[in-house]
Amino acid sequence: MGLARATQKEPYALNLNLKYLTIEWLQRRGVDLEDIASLVYTIQKKYVPGLTIEYCRESVERVLEKREVQNAVFTGLSLDEMAEKGLFEEPLSEMLCSDDGLYGIDEVLALSIVNIYGSIGLTNFGYLDKVKPGILGKINQEKGERVNTFLDDLVAAIAAAAAARIAHQSRDRRGGG
Amino acid sequence: MGLARATQKEPYALNLNLKYLTIEWLQRRGVDLEDIASLVYTIQKKYVPGLTIEYCRESVERVLEKREVQNAVFTGLSLDEMAEKGLFEEPLSEMLCSDDGLYGIDEVLALSIVNIYGSIGLTNFGYLDKVKPGILGKINQEKGERVNTFLDDLVAAIAAAAAARIAHQSRDRRGGG
Amino acid sequence: MGLARATQKEPYALNLNLKYLTIEWLQRRGVDLEDIASLVYTIQKKYVPGLTIEYCRESVERVLEKREVQNAVFTGLSLDEMAEKGLFEEPLSEMLCSDDGLYGIDEVLALSIVNIYGSIGLTNFGYLDKVKPGILGKINQEKGERVNTFLDDLVAAIAAAAAARIAHQSRDRRGGG
Amino acid sequence: MGLARATQKEPYALNLNLKYLTIEWLQRRGVDLEDIASLVYTIQKKYVPGLTIEYCRESVERVLEKREVQNAVFTGLSLDEMAEKGLFEEPLSEMLCSDDGLYGIDEVLALSIVNIYGSIGLTNFGYLDKVKPGILGKINQEKGERVNTFLDDLVAAIAAAAAARIAHQSRDRRGGG
Repeated sequence: MGLARATQKEPYALNLNLKYLTIEWLQRRGVDLEDIASLVYTIQKKYVPGLTIEYCRESVERVLEKREVQNAVFTGLSLDEMAEKGLFEEPLSEMLCSDDGLYGIDEVLALSIVNIYGSIGLTNFGYLDKVKPGILGKINQEKGERVNTFLDDLVAAIAAAAAARIAHQSRDRRGGG
Repeated sequence: MGLARATQKEPYALNLNLKYLTIEWLQRRGVDLEDIASLVYTIQKKYVPGLTIEYCRESVERVLEKREVQNAVFTGLSLDEMAEKGLFEEPLSEMLCSDDGLYGIDEVLALSIVNIYGSIGLTNFGYLDKVKPGILGKINQEKGERVNTFLDDLVAAIAAAAAARIAHQSRDRRGGG
Repeated sequence: MGLARATQKEPYALNLNLKYLTIEWLQRRGVDLEDIASLVYTIQKKYVPGLTIEYCRESVERVLEKREVQNAVFTGLSLDEMAEKGLFEEPLSEMLCSDDGLYGIDEVLALSIVNIYGSIGLTNFGYLDKVKPGILGKINQEKGERVNTFLDDLVAAIAAAAAARIAHQSRDRRGGG
Repeated sequence: MGLARATQKEPYALNLNLKYLTIEWLQRRGVDLEDIASLVYTIQKKYVPGLTIEYCRESVERVLEKREVQNAVFTGLSLDEMAEKGLFEEPLSEMLCSDDGLYGIDEVLALSIVNIYGSIGLTNFGYLDKVKPGILGKINQEKGERVNTFLDDLVAAIAAAAAARIAHQSRDRRGGG
């Protein structure tokens, strides 16, 4: 695969390289940076005057440079794809394919992303995961044909972390003024 | 104080005793078991046919028997009350009194409650904390006169944990049928 | 497979059934209940007078009845086995096969187990994971031939949770005396 | 108080200002940056060739610039000091003064620090908290005269986070070489 070859030339531990791989993996499952930036804008616009989609997108990119986030995405999306291909034994296969509400490991992985900027992202994550605006609604509707058990939680978590990052920065700027 | 004396006769480590103390502390801050049971009912009624307020209340009581939950309540409500009395130094005092969005320790304590029944309570916690139905709206309006920085997150977390407990039980019953 | 067939007769959501499946999956990777009970005994014996291996084993069994624990084991051990078979793309494949210290998702899953009995298991988990007594040393030595990236953290987490459960019970008994 | 006045001139939200306040609060409880840097050196020296105490100290300083870390320190040390002054009601007072093994909120706060650089700090935190090298042993011996229930966990957590930060950086440098 092209991905595998790219990582042989440059060591994969180079965070920038891993960041672009992470973006590719998300796109492969139908999610663009713009989709996630829109979620960030939705939850943060009323708190940050003059917030732009571009600024939200930049914050999403910073989140995707974190190793913990990259590893959660690689692991979660691999689980979704392999469940789709029927590679897991029972009872894991059925839990993943039906997005079993008691499975919980999808939320565990998402939490490891949300925590990157502290606990203040927690509320936004829960809200996004429940209300499912924008791309999250689309991901949710695809369930049935596709396995998106990890995808929706990962996307909500990345958006919540990017929003928490903006909240921290917005405060620091005003504080330092 | 009556509370202190009660714990000298019977050792406080007796969980039942601590449970009733926890309920008293919550009532002292204006929150009854029924208020929390209503939150549980609100978020769980569409998933569990025939769910009753009584059953929700019982689930809240089970949650309040857990030591981790009791300790989070004792600690968080003490922080609220002592902030109200102006006992903290800066910068902690201002962060607690203004319910600073970057403080985050209130969410950290809440998370330790939500996790008691696994990560499936996370989404409900985030939703309750954002939308603030029922008693949570009332707690939020009191801010200004009172310090409820920990109270609202603790109440949302107890409700989310009790809802997660019901979700687990509902599934087990059907599974075992 | 025998496992898959067993779950068709009785619904997998039956926790007891899932418990025995969890034990089978651990045995398949070379870990018996007795191995985990020994870890519990090692870390808890100096705190609980008269502690027996049998009591530790019973506590491990109670931990394995929790859905969050079962799901973490199914997911983690599947990831180990599929990495062994070379089923993952890069960069995930290399991270799993080399037990990359920056991967972190193994610790994330373990933490979801440790948290089941509150945060008091955290210290024991960290200690077991660093010092690697008993079965943990054996699992660690197998690395190279096998992928045990998740296995060692899962086993340490189950032992730490079972020890935390004993600590809670020991206190409650004395408290109630 | 001098601290309170300092924060009136410059807004406390300025992270650098809060960083120096955090260092002052730790020193007030008997812990210097050098003490924490030594812990980092102890756990990381065998993994990072050429590691120096100065580099460890710098990593500790970076950790102390994070708001979540600062807030955990302010909150935990206030709880220790107020418990020392007998300001809490029972049962919280006794739990804090005896460093009750079932209290758990100290570990919860510590975990929010450890998580700042992902879950890879978890093992080091548990190890430090159990083995108590250097300053941690000294803090532990003071218990009895002083309340250090939160102090020891906070210091172990800051050291574990600083070690995790070095592990990430060390890898990135080699990866990018």
